[in-house]
Amino acid sequence: MKIAENGSALGDVLKHSPGPRVLVPTMGAFHPGHISLMHKAREISGPEGTVVVSIFVNPIQFDRASDLEAYPRPMESDLAACEAAGVDVVFTPVADSMYFPDRSVTVTETLLSRDLCGAARPGHFDGVCTVVLKLFLLSGCDVAVFGEKDFQQLAIIRRMVRDLDVPVEIVSCPTMREADGLAMSSRNTRLTPEQRADAPRILRTLKAAAELGDVEAILARAREEIEASPLARIDYLSLVDAETLQPVTDLVRPAVLATAVFYGEVRLIDHVDL
Amino acid sequence: MKIAENGSALGDVLKHSPGPRVLVPTMGAFHPGHISLMHKAREISGPEGTVVVSIFVNPIQFDRASDLEAYPRPMESDLAACEAAGVDVVFTPVADSMYFPDRSVTVTETLLSRDLCGAARPGHFDGVCTVVLKLFLLSGCDVAVFGEKDFQQLAIIRRMVRDLDVPVEIVSCPTMREADGLAMSSRNTRLTPEQRADAPRILRTLKAAAELGDVEAILARAREEIEASPLARIDYLSLVDAETLQPVTDLVRPAVLATAVFYGEVRLIDHVDL
Repeated sequence: MKIAENGSALGDVLKHSPGPRVLVPTMGAFHPGHISLMHKAREISGPEGTVVVSIFVNPIQFDRASDLEAYPRPMESDLAACEAAGVDVVFTPVADSMYFPDRSVTVTETLLSRDLCGAARPGHFDGVCTVVLKLFLLSGCDVAVFGEKDFQQLAIIRRMVRDLDVPVEIVSCPTMREADGLAMSSRNTRLTPEQRADAPRILRTLKAAAELGDVEAILARAREEIEASPLARIDYLSLVDAETLQPVTDLVRPAVLATAVFYGEVRLIDHVDL
Repeated sequence: MKIAENGSALGDVLKHSPGPRVLVPTMGAFHPGHISLMHKAREISGPEGTVVVSIFVNPIQFDRASDLEAYPRPMESDLAACEAAGVDVVFTPVADSMYFPDRSVTVTETLLSRDLCGAARPGHFDGVCTVVLKLFLLSGCDVAVFGEKDFQQLAIIRRMVRDLDVPVEIVSCPTMREADGLAMSSRNTRLTPEQRADAPRILRTLKAAAELGDVEAILARAREEIEASPLARIDYLSLVDAETLQPVTDLVRPAVLATAVFYGEVRLIDHVDL
């Protein structure tokens, strides 16, 4: 396994690597969800192709300095996990090598990023689009693999690929969950034992509410059951169209019930399809 | 010479074309300036490489519908000129094949595009960046050739390539001029004989003023001499840093004296280096 610490080192390492080249863009702090993305990448690349994992806690997609600061960075165990998953190349740039101080070019998305995490985290998805495009172009990947847990991110990246003619195929993998249903997330390690015990209510609530069949009833029930916990604070709770991500008033087309919930300073997201 | 009318046709045509692949992005209506870019492209590609010329009047970089409407589109003679210049592939997409109706992703530049043509034409350079990135990615070019006449555009594209890690080398060619000094432009054909006779005053004025050695004197003299013509109306006249394109107050670093002048509805730009 080779490690590249900046773009030009990555270019050197990949210069003669065999295709197809499959990228897994991550912020590290791996849990089994990430590992499933790496296995999917290997499945796509085949034994002869090249699997690249990037580990980069991207500062320009954080709207809160405290969240960026607190984001876990267990580099040593992450590298061991990549090695164990049979990854060929790990790209671990520092922020200084990714962004010039007088950086002035950004990729912006104005439609799918309006609601949900976009409303709650201004600038977040522009930061995501910008770094993901950079990682695509630096790695020259043919395919990139993303988790479905961040479903808004996934929709926005597909939109970017479509609108900018980016020659990268996007593949997604299902959300991995703990035995009690909590969506796996690098942020889960920051929960107190009490918060951790309470957090499965998020999925449980979304699932139960989704059965109600009426937009207002679904939203009211879900809000009520999450707010029933003194530990949980809803950031947003929305029922949106699965394609446009705009809030819906009826359930004619496929929809997604999505929420972001704060436990103390830790923000967890989850969603169910309707 | 092959012609592709949408992105997927271009991909097919270029699939097995030999490298290096050199792109000349244009809006058509060729004059000798464009032809010089094609010759430069061939010089870079060598006889074995592939020269691609795109002809696309990009709607999203026009802020005035009248200008978009009036932009000349002499496709037949443009194709003949490409053929004569030994171009391998011409890409002539229609707007519908480049932009989805619900397009929501744009490349934005916030620093170099603030002044000059950026101030006068809101959204113009975001439209330029977006289409140029799309053309780079659709063509998969190794090198792209631009004219120096649009020096702000050139600076912004270089900045985009740097900030987004676009794997394309940018090469520029000097402004081509008529015998009387007027910068060649596709818009020159829209000048009346009277306007055409007056327009060489732009370069003459910039050159003379640039000799004065003092920022305020330069700007005052240039403004005075252009406004001396009843046919000319200044859109902007600025003395900017050659690298940051921000207005300067002294002449310590390399600077550019740049102007945009309206003759009726026709807007002409030119600049001189200091």
